[in-house]
Amino acid sequence: MTERPLAVVLLSGGMDSCVTTAIASRTHRLALLHAGYGQRTEWRERRAFENIAEFYAVPPERRLRARLEYFAQIGGSALTDRRMEIPERENQSQKAQMLRKNPSGSLSHKVERDEIPPTYVPFRNAHFLSIAVSWAEVIGASSVFIGAVEEDSSGYPDCRPEYFRLFSELVKAGTRPETQIEIVTPVIAMRKGEIVKRGIELGAPLHLTWSCYQDEEDACGVCDSCRLRLRGFAEAGVPDPIAYRAAVAR
Amino acid sequence: MTERPLAVVLLSGGMDSCVTTAIASRTHRLALLHAGYGQRTEWRERRAFENIAEFYAVPPERRLRARLEYFAQIGGSALTDRRMEIPERENQSQKAQMLRKNPSGSLSHKVERDEIPPTYVPFRNAHFLSIAVSWAEVIGASSVFIGAVEEDSSGYPDCRPEYFRLFSELVKAGTRPETQIEIVTPVIAMRKGEIVKRGIELGAPLHLTWSCYQDEEDACGVCDSCRLRLRGFAEAGVPDPIAYRAAVAR
Repeated sequence: MTERPLAVVLLSGGMDSCVTTAIASRTHRLALLHAGYGQRTEWRERRAFENIAEFYAVPPERRLRARLEYFAQIGGSALTDRRMEIPERENQSQKAQMLRKNPSGSLSHKVERDEIPPTYVPFRNAHFLSIAVSWAEVIGASSVFIGAVEEDSSGYPDCRPEYFRLFSELVKAGTRPETQIEIVTPVIAMRKGEIVKRGIELGAPLHLTWSCYQDEEDACGVCDSCRLRLRGFAEAGVPDPIAYRAAVAR
Repeated sequence: MTERPLAVVLLSGGMDSCVTTAIASRTHRLALLHAGYGQRTEWRERRAFENIAEFYAVPPERRLRARLEYFAQIGGSALTDRRMEIPERENQSQKAQMLRKNPSGSLSHKVERDEIPPTYVPFRNAHFLSIAVSWAEVIGASSVFIGAVEEDSSGYPDCRPEYFRLFSELVKAGTRPETQIEIVTPVIAMRKGEIVKRGIELGAPLHLTWSCYQDEEDACGVCDSCRLRLRGFAEAGVPDPIAYRAAVAR
């Protein structure tokens, strides 16, 4: 029997990347990558990352914890800049409505910018994928898995299928001729509820994941990321196994 | 009179990026970016970066010194892995000949890998450009200048025009809708001698640059990077203003 191919999986420690890891584990040996870029909950995410890595028995040399210190220097996002506020219960459809009332030709610069949530980190996925591809090239991995979700991240331009298609082309053009690294986005077209269901089917350790953007003890239950996660569990009709600070969230 | 547009320039401190800075300075206000990734001569490069930034009177808030610590964790290049040797007087045409003797269909994996010099850092330019684009998006710069040279970097897949064209498309797809960031490669088609001549025409501070891959006091004169630089000055018919350790190099 030949050994399974090796895949680098971007694992933030959240639900989407945990289910992506579960999907990758069925066909690949895992190499797990966590990217710390000064996000508020970086250390809590790292704990989730390590716990999930243990769960999948990934050896230490196949865990990479990269720190992108320069994101804090660059700023420009509520995730890395403490002077900016994390929005609570942000309503994408309200914003979409607002935009429809202002046909695109007459949109002011200001209004257009408001379309993107303040938690957007400029061009973030390019950094994560670049690290994953460099590492994959060195260790001989044939795939890079990333748990991007188009629907829930509609405000993030670097979560769209077209973006990942272009990135795959860039990888072909920019690596050694014999290198073949595929960018795989297994949950990109799923709704949050489907992701939860798929995770449960695959026995993914959802109880070890962390999604909150705001807090590091109990999840806040009100930030964008908590809200999307809770909606997913509600859609799937199963309780979220992690603890929340605010009763209002359930 | 309207203010000139802002450009992020990737400035390693070497000759090519210094001349690229000189070219950008004619049409743009400058924001300078140095990327440290554990390369052997990182601190010497940083000194060259600061000196060139002073020369162009770039204010401190428009100088970004990013440290990509994770490259040392990833390894795989002689530039970041001290266990690998920096090649001296590497001969690209000899290697090309060797490859021609082995038609591509019959090339072993080993021989194909040898085509790329050991100083290749896997997918490096994607990291540098990603940082430049994120920063450009935050500070409102309309261009990212990079001093890649196709001819002399023929072994590096991420120095080809096609690669930068794809990266430009990726930037369009992965940034805010109103963001327009152009990737500019003004010296990509130049020979080293032309770069030296252009630098001198523009009054670029070539005496402040640093190219050596190996040493941090006097340049070694024998590594790939020194050799290419010296060839450039020889082609241009002017003396290189920096000091070399080895008399043999001149």
